[in-house]
Order: sequence, then structure tokens, then C-alpha cells
Amino acid sequence: MKTLQINASQGAYNVYIGPDLRFELSKYLPKSYDKILIITDSQVEQLGYLKDAEEALQMETDQLYSYTIAAGEKSKQLNVFEQLQTYAIQNGLDRHSLIVALGGGVVGDLAGFTAATFMRGIDYIQVPTTILAHDSSVGGKTGINHPLGKNLIGSFHAPKAVVYDLSTIRTLSAVERRSGFAEVVKHGLIADKRMLNQLMDEVQALENIHPIVLEEALYNGIKIKAHIVEEDEQEKGVRSYLNFGHTLGHAIEAESGYGAITHGEAVAIGMLFALRVSQSYLSLSFSYQNFKTWLEQLQYPLDICKDLQISPLLDRMKLDKKNQKGQIRMVLLKEVGKPLICTIDEHRLFTELTSFMNEVME
Amino acid sequence: MKTLQINASQGAYNVYIGPDLRFELSKYLPKSYDKILIITDSQVEQLGYLKDAEEALQMETDQLYSYTIAAGEKSKQLNVFEQLQTYAIQNGLDRHSLIVALGGGVVGDLAGFTAATFMRGIDYIQVPTTILAHDSSVGGKTGINHPLGKNLIGSFHAPKAVVYDLSTIRTLSAVERRSGFAEVVKHGLIADKRMLNQLMDEVQALENIHPIVLEEALYNGIKIKAHIVEEDEQEKGVRSYLNFGHTLGHAIEAESGYGAITHGEAVAIGMLFALRVSQSYLSLSFSYQNFKTWLEQLQYPLDICKDLQISPLLDRMKLDKKNQKGQIRMVLLKEVGKPLICTIDEHRLFTELTSFMNEVME
Repeated sequence: MKTLQINASQGAYNVYIGPDLRFELSKYLPKSYDKILIITDSQVEQLGYLKDAEEALQMETDQLYSYTIAAGEKSKQLNVFEQLQTYAIQNGLDRHSLIVALGGGVVGDLAGFTAATFMRGIDYIQVPTTILAHDSSVGGKTGINHPLGKNLIGSFHAPKAVVYDLSTIRTLSAVERRSGFAEVVKHGLIADKRMLNQLMDEVQALENIHPIVLEEALYNGIKIKAHIVEEDEQEKGVRSYLNFGHTLGHAIEAESGYGAITHGEAVAIGMLFALRVSQSYLSLSFSYQNFKTWLEQLQYPLDICKDLQISPLLDRMKLDKKNQKGQIRMVLLKEVGKPLICTIDEHRLFTELTSFMNEVME
Repeated sequence: MKTLQINASQGAYNVYIGPDLRFELSKYLPKSYDKILIITDSQVEQLGYLKDAEEALQMETDQLYSYTIAAGEKSKQLNVFEQLQTYAIQNGLDRHSLIVALGGGVVGDLAGFTAATFMRGIDYIQVPTTILAHDSSVGGKTGINHPLGKNLIGSFHAPKAVVYDLSTIRTLSAVERRSGFAEVVKHGLIADKRMLNQLMDEVQALENIHPIVLEEALYNGIKIKAHIVEEDEQEKGVRSYLNFGHTLGHAIEAESGYGAITHGEAVAIGMLFALRVSQSYLSLSFSYQNFKTWLEQLQYPLDICKDLQISPLLDRMKLDKKNQKGQIRMVLLKEVGKPLICTIDEHRLFTELTSFMNEVME
């Protein structure tokens, strides 16, 4: 097992990474709790991980509650948030209780936001079960979607621990691996050229990716993320680099209806676009074509672009949280590992997006 | 004009107290903003204060938006919160925009929670227009009600300034004065015996309370609150003293249906009960009867007790945020100005509440 410490303003917390950690969850709690509420989704429950977590946490308390939401991005909305609040109140959770977010990014964001706002904030831990959540479980971002845009309602609320059981990612479907792997690639692109090259060399298919290659990439990805969020917890500056690929990515997700394409798949397309804009704006020297071929080989659904219209995507991009004074801002790369945040003229963005879409569909 | 500085973990902010400050609101902004959204209620709008604030803030920006909620506690709920989020998104507010909470406690809590969660937190200022809000506008507590209890969903999010225009409180109705004055009295009870005695001596009716007496009391009340929240921003300890009278107070509000009795009126009854419990638990030496007579003279609606049942009130008190391990905790006084937090046995509380209710109805 590996351990990383993250210094957050609300206190330091540990990230534990290793196999089978879910069986000994109570060992990783920062203190003892009288009441614990596990929030998970139907898929994680079906895989038996909820049962495993419940058995592990029964060591800690006999006042253990569980709430299972429907799997999928559609659960990350205000009325599911309200149901969770109601359940927590009805079961007598108080300011000294703990919430456990057992699942992928949706569960982590939603359970985290519930913890952030229940009685003005209680403790929670993240127990990610997907590759994608190696990213979202670290750094304290919590939130839900608004029909007009992703993650528009939320807050910063650091977890008290992240317990990453690598055994749980073995049961991921191909599409979930693909979704999560995009964020691993992102960490390489924005911060570690060597890591990126290694991934492009060693990963030719996501089904049979070697566990050691994956575990090392996840550990490095979390280290990169930890380093950035420690420097800029509230996203006033460098933290927005983590948003590489997300400006168009979020727009694609929203525009195609949440759930039609996974978060990471949309981010992969967004990264491809950001690389192209980086070439034309910042003369990035990078083999765009090799990267595109690699994404295709890994079966990222670039062809979803044919179903999307430019103007509504652009309107979505105008709602991005990075924007200032109504101007669209994107994270671009000067070099691999050297990100920058740039204001992009709307008309030029329209042209870039149009030619990108045409090219991708070829 | 008087100014107090409050040191919050998210940064220090000023409280400005004086007449006619709403006409020069833009002077008190901590920095410049491109977009500003004023959130107010129908009553404040009707009194013309929204127009005054709009005119003052047009000095600052031409991208000024206003949203008026229905006046009253019922607006402090999740679907009004969602409407505010939608309005903010639709008008292109971003992380660098400002929200102005123009109104009483309901507007302040709701607008503050909107600011706390819009794009994971943006700036806001409090512009209280009631006596009650001298209390709620300071200290960064934001939130909304859940059908099962008051302020159960919320967060700590400090304002960037509090601009308290004392001229606006001249238009308050008798019932609003009564509501706000209860929190002034509370500040005396928990922290300043001299202030309490002075209020009991000098205030015989709330209609004709001398402006200088009121202004001094408000200033002292804010100073007491500021001192406590600086010491314990997140309510881990002494901040809960500010909850004096609120354990039963919140239960009465919820049980009689939000809006049937004002917050401060319910708190006044809650304080009377807390004083009685303080006598029996901590041998508080205090002229309970004088205080009760004074509340009656000021027309606090003690007779609402006759419509309330003990058991449901007790159930509500069990949901209080101060509770731990399922045990009810109340703020009591050892002496006037010397509060303590005490765990109260449920059966004894039942007995105390029963005899209190009988006595009040006599």
C-alpha cells in the first residue's frame, strides 16, 4: 500500500492506495464516529462492494446506514441531493457523523456536496471504485449539475481521507476504463511528459492494460493532482490547469445529454481539441496525429462529433466556470507538461471548432 | 458611521453601521465587480430600498441584475434556491461576480447560500434591513430550511462586507421589531449583563424605542457576535452560545409552520425556557418573573404555547444541530453573561417543558 499526504486548508488528509483496502475501511478513518452513512450507487452495490464496506464498518459502529442512488450522471442533481439530506436527517445524523462516498465520480461529488452542506458541513471520506475517481476523489471539489451546465452548484470541502482500493477497478467495464483513463492521460499531458510517452508506448488496448502500469500511472496521477491542489486549493490559479480538455468536454457532455457519453470520453475529445488550439495559438510542437490515432485505437468515440452542432456547444462553453468578463478561457499547452490559461476570441473559437469537428469526422 | 473589522478564515471583512448607507453602497465594496446580482424580497422592494440600491450600484457596473423573492420564511427552501441559481447562470454570472443580499435574515441566509455554492463559491455582501439581521448578517452562516428542520442545509461562507443602513429599520413593522429585538436581548443575556439591564430599564415598548438606545444596542450586539465568531468560526465550541434560546425556538417555528410566528418571537420563548432550565440545572440567580413580565409587556406572543404539543416539540429538539450522540444539548446560563452548553436528559426535558408550558399559559 502507498500513502500520500495532502495538505488542505481544512486540515491534512491521507490518500491510501492499494489492493483490497475496502475490507479494512475502519482502519483508515481519522477518528471514531458514532454514526456513519455510506452513499453508493446501484452498480457498486450489485458488485458486492457495498456489502464489503458495510461489514468493514460494522467494526466501527452499530449505527451504520446506507443509501443507494441510481448509477449514472443523472443522479448528480438537486432532487437526489435533497433525498440524501432527508435520509440523513431521518436517521439522526449529526455534526459528528461521517459520510462515506463509495463509488465513482458521481457518487463522490454528490456525497461530498451532501457532507459539505449537511448542518453546514460534516466529515466525509472518499472510497473511489473507478479509474476516473482517482482524479475526482482528491482535492475537495464537490457538487451537482444544473440543467444548464455541469458542476455549477457545489463547494470546496476536503475529505478526511481517500481510500483507493485498486481491486475494485478490476470489475470496470471497457467504457468506464476508457472514461477514467482519459484523466490519467490528462495528468501526463499537463505535468509529466515522460509519463505520457510511457502510456502511449505501453498501452495499446484498455482491456489488457498491465496492472502494474496502471497502478503506477494512477499513483503518479494522484501525485500530480495532489501537488497542484495543495498549491491552489480554491482554483484561483494553477488548479485550473486540471481543467485541460474540460471546456469542450463539459459542453459535449451537456449537449449530448448527461450519460450519453462518459465524462472521460468527452474530456478526451476536449483534450484533442485543446491540443489543436494549442498548436495554432501557442505553436505547440506535438504529434497531434499520433495522439489522435492512439485515441482511436483505444476506441474513444470521436465520431460522436457528427451528432453535435457548433453553436450550441459554443453557448455551453460560454458558461464554463473558468470564464471571466464573458470571455471564454481555455487551458492550453505551450509544451507537454507546460500548461497556460488563455482567453480565446469567440469568433476564432468558432472557426477552430468548426474545422476540428470536420477533421475529426473525416 | 461606525466600522468593525471581523477576522474570518477566508479573509477579514468590515461591518459598516450608520444611517443612509444604501445610497452609497458602491463605496463599501471591497473591490470592483463586472457583474452584480442583488437578491431581495417583495417587501424590501416595495419599500423602495431595491431601487435605492440599484441606483447606488449602477455607479459600479452596467451589468446589474436583481431578483426578488416572496417575503417570508417560506422562501428559504430548496426550490427558491434553485431558481436563484438558474437566474444567476442565465445572466452569465461567473466566479468573479458579486451577490448582494439586500433584506432581512431570510434573504441573507438564502442569498449567502447561493453565493456559497454558485460555481463552488463567489463573493457576496450583506445589506441587512432588519433588526434581526444585525445578528444573522455577521458571521458567515448561510443556509436554507428542510421540511424536517430549520437551517439544516447550508454552509459557512463569510461575506466580503456587511453594510448596515440603520435608516432602513425605521420602516419595520411592530412584529419585525419584536423579532429582531429578541436577538439583541440574547446578546445581552449571553455576554453583557450591563447591556441587558439597560435594555430592561429603558425599553418599555418597541414602537417608540429611542434611536440612540437602539443603535447602541445594535452596535454592542454586533461587537459581541463578532468577538465570538472570530474565536470559533465553524461552531466547534463557543459559537454555539449564540444559539441560546434557539433549541426550543427552532422547534416552535417548525412546529407552528414556518411564518406563523417570527424567528425572534420563537427565540424569545426559547430564551425564557432556557432561563427556567438554567435555574433548575445550574441554580441561575435571575429574576425570571421580571423577565417574563417584560416580554409580555413588549407583546411577545407567549400564548402561542397553548397551540403546541410537548411530544412533537421534543422530537424537533432532537434534530437540533448542537446535539451529539442522539442527546439533546442546550445553551444554559450559569450567570447572565456566562453561558454553558449542557446535555439534558430527555425525560427531564419533557418534565421541564411540560411545566414551563403550563406556567406560560396561566
